[in-house]
Amino acid sequence: MMRMVDLIEKKRDGFELSAAEIDFIIKGYTDNSIPDYQISALTMAIYFKGMSERERADLTMAMVKSGDQIDLARIEGIKVDKHSTGGVGDTTTLVLGPLVAAVGVPVAKMSGRGLGHTGGTIDKLEAVKGFHVEIDNEQFIHLVNKNKLAVIGQSGNLTPADKKLYALRDVTATVDSIPLIASSIMSKKIAAGADAIVLDVKTGAGAFMKTLEDSRELAKAMVRIGNNVGRRTMAVISDMSQPLGYAIGNALEVQEAIDTLKGQGPEDLTELCLTLGSHMVYLAGKANTLEEARNLLEKAIQDGSALEAFRVFLSSQGGDASIVDDPARLPQAKYKYELEAKESGYLSEMVADEIGTAAMLLGAGRATKDSQIDLAVGLVLRKKIGDKVEKGESLLTIHSNFENVDHVKELLYKNLKLTKNQVNAPTLVHGEITE
Amino acid sequence: MMRMVDLIEKKRDGFELSAAEIDFIIKGYTDNSIPDYQISALTMAIYFKGMSERERADLTMAMVKSGDQIDLARIEGIKVDKHSTGGVGDTTTLVLGPLVAAVGVPVAKMSGRGLGHTGGTIDKLEAVKGFHVEIDNEQFIHLVNKNKLAVIGQSGNLTPADKKLYALRDVTATVDSIPLIASSIMSKKIAAGADAIVLDVKTGAGAFMKTLEDSRELAKAMVRIGNNVGRRTMAVISDMSQPLGYAIGNALEVQEAIDTLKGQGPEDLTELCLTLGSHMVYLAGKANTLEEARNLLEKAIQDGSALEAFRVFLSSQGGDASIVDDPARLPQAKYKYELEAKESGYLSEMVADEIGTAAMLLGAGRATKDSQIDLAVGLVLRKKIGDKVEKGESLLTIHSNFENVDHVKELLYKNLKLTKNQVNAPTLVHGEITE
Repeated sequence: MMRMVDLIEKKRDGFELSAAEIDFIIKGYTDNSIPDYQISALTMAIYFKGMSERERADLTMAMVKSGDQIDLARIEGIKVDKHSTGGVGDTTTLVLGPLVAAVGVPVAKMSGRGLGHTGGTIDKLEAVKGFHVEIDNEQFIHLVNKNKLAVIGQSGNLTPADKKLYALRDVTATVDSIPLIASSIMSKKIAAGADAIVLDVKTGAGAFMKTLEDSRELAKAMVRIGNNVGRRTMAVISDMSQPLGYAIGNALEVQEAIDTLKGQGPEDLTELCLTLGSHMVYLAGKANTLEEARNLLEKAIQDGSALEAFRVFLSSQGGDASIVDDPARLPQAKYKYELEAKESGYLSEMVADEIGTAAMLLGAGRATKDSQIDLAVGLVLRKKIGDKVEKGESLLTIHSNFENVDHVKELLYKNLKLTKNQVNAPTLVHGEITE
Repeated sequence: MMRMVDLIEKKRDGFELSAAEIDFIIKGYTDNSIPDYQISALTMAIYFKGMSERERADLTMAMVKSGDQIDLARIEGIKVDKHSTGGVGDTTTLVLGPLVAAVGVPVAKMSGRGLGHTGGTIDKLEAVKGFHVEIDNEQFIHLVNKNKLAVIGQSGNLTPADKKLYALRDVTATVDSIPLIASSIMSKKIAAGADAIVLDVKTGAGAFMKTLEDSRELAKAMVRIGNNVGRRTMAVISDMSQPLGYAIGNALEVQEAIDTLKGQGPEDLTELCLTLGSHMVYLAGKANTLEEARNLLEKAIQDGSALEAFRVFLSSQGGDASIVDDPARLPQAKYKYELEAKESGYLSEMVADEIGTAAMLLGAGRATKDSQIDLAVGLVLRKKIGDKVEKGESLLTIHSNFENVDHVKELLYKNLKLTKNQVNAPTLVHGEITE
């Protein structure tokens, strides 16, 4: 007869919990036979004592088994999911879906809304008139088989143990634990039916992991969990010291995605999409080398097939695909303001999460679950770190439906720094982790 | 506006909590506005990160303020309370009450029953026919002023925060934390109205603290809390590798207390009572030096005034004081069995807590709150560590109301070890901590 108090003590004293013990804990927590106060003591002990590679894999699978698991067996091919740990102005998902679909990689995306600087993938796509994710499972599978790309809203009771655990960690100061973060993310991806997983672990001021060291540790932890439970997994560690691309906002990011699919997107966003996309294509078995995969993706941009995949995807889910050729049909903000440089110099700092907060203040994201999102508003950067700036030149454009944006400007000025000396642009990809 | 999650994080990261923050936590926990799951995360963080001297004092006083505080102002003199961290066969309280009362130190004892190898002080005293603790507060104060000694059952809502906290720590593997143990004990003593406190911190196999190092740390922690909150406090660290004295059992310990008050008690029990008693007398201001205090106590034994104080105490609370002169009137067990040595040698080990468990198996103590205590039963040691033993000689006498005590004998044999080589008796007092 297992007793939870003994398992807490075991972890507290630095011993490894067995697979059966981890199952007992997660089952008991899911069915409420183990109370919150024992779980929070355990998670604090894990915060201090960590978990072995084996324990992390067992915890992940115990959470997967705690609820429904999506069965994607009827979708042809290897389903590769891409997951980002979250950043500011991260338009990669919008670009990658059509891009890899165009070379035959099936993308069966389940997505949510959530809190943040801007909306989730579904919110962004809803900037396209008529687009909706209220499709049933049959239709979803049919669309992925036909078009290689569809998005469905979250349904079913996926990883309820993880939901409960995350809510508890949030109020007990046990969020910042690599084994718990890694198991949480991986359990959701696996329950959603991924065969293989490409992780985009962000690092820097705008990311959850502020240091390269922590980002690398999280990336390794997730890659090892994935590979240990039989899902080919790799991670790219990418920069989030400044926002990715130029656009931060829902409709603005859709427009940026279209530009990128046309081969006219921001350099950093394009490069990261090609990097992540190559790994997706490679893991899906659609290319024998990463170089070959990248060539396929570049060709899909050049020959217009990536853009076409986006059109087909939008119209298949009710969306007005004409926005692809006429982006002015996307929601537009009433006011545009330029943020003018107060002096000349080089842009040396652009604190990503504070820039994100400025976008949220405009209404681009949700501060609480009940906030309304304004799909039209946001920011479009004109300069990025390392760029030369003349006094009076625009650093960025504010798209707002409020006439008065003084408080937003103030926040932005505080978080954009210019120096006299030349500055290098930050490295975009800090590393790739495959095992 | 304080948020509990921030305070957990602060402690988790090794920072000190302020007095106001500790008050917020303890008030919130007492009035149920802070849930168990946040407190258990905090106590686990305290387990790993500890508490400063200042935090310990603040926690103690916050718990004192969480409930009623006993007002002993109407009792003349300095009220010195003695507290033992608990051991096996610990008859010191029964001896010390009348002993220090005889030299004019007021002893206003509030006591409980509780779980353990034998009963609490009240259970033991109830082996004296007619003795009871159901007296009201007025009578209690009157008796202490008149006789310098009275015992009352626990009443009022003392340190409810500590009770809640202890129950939670018990099921979340956070009992073994020196700052939490020390604050818990000290809060109860202070709420019970003590002006000064003498602590008997036991060390060894039969004690809560098994190593001398841990015992010393706990003793220091408690002494510093006491002195930091204005209660003169000192601690004696005493041996509990073997049971103290000879008797383990309720009536048996009353008889042993009488023997000791007559000057005919076991050497170790007598010595420890004189040591603890000297500090009590000294802290109560009834002697200018410890030596003078000890002389007063030795005289009280020699001239019979200590024994007389016991008689007066018993009869004042309804007890049959004639047992002092005729201990055969105490409850007697039906059967007595000698535990015969299986070989000759020197007694080298007598694992105190296992010997205690043997007494509990006979019925001398409570395993659960609802267990009935048999006041008559228990063990009387015939040999202690270092004593020479001949094959067939009795190691101890089992007083039982069960005819079959084979399982008790087996447990005892397993925990009594003989060697061929001469062994030293363990040191009784390992140290005194005054600051």
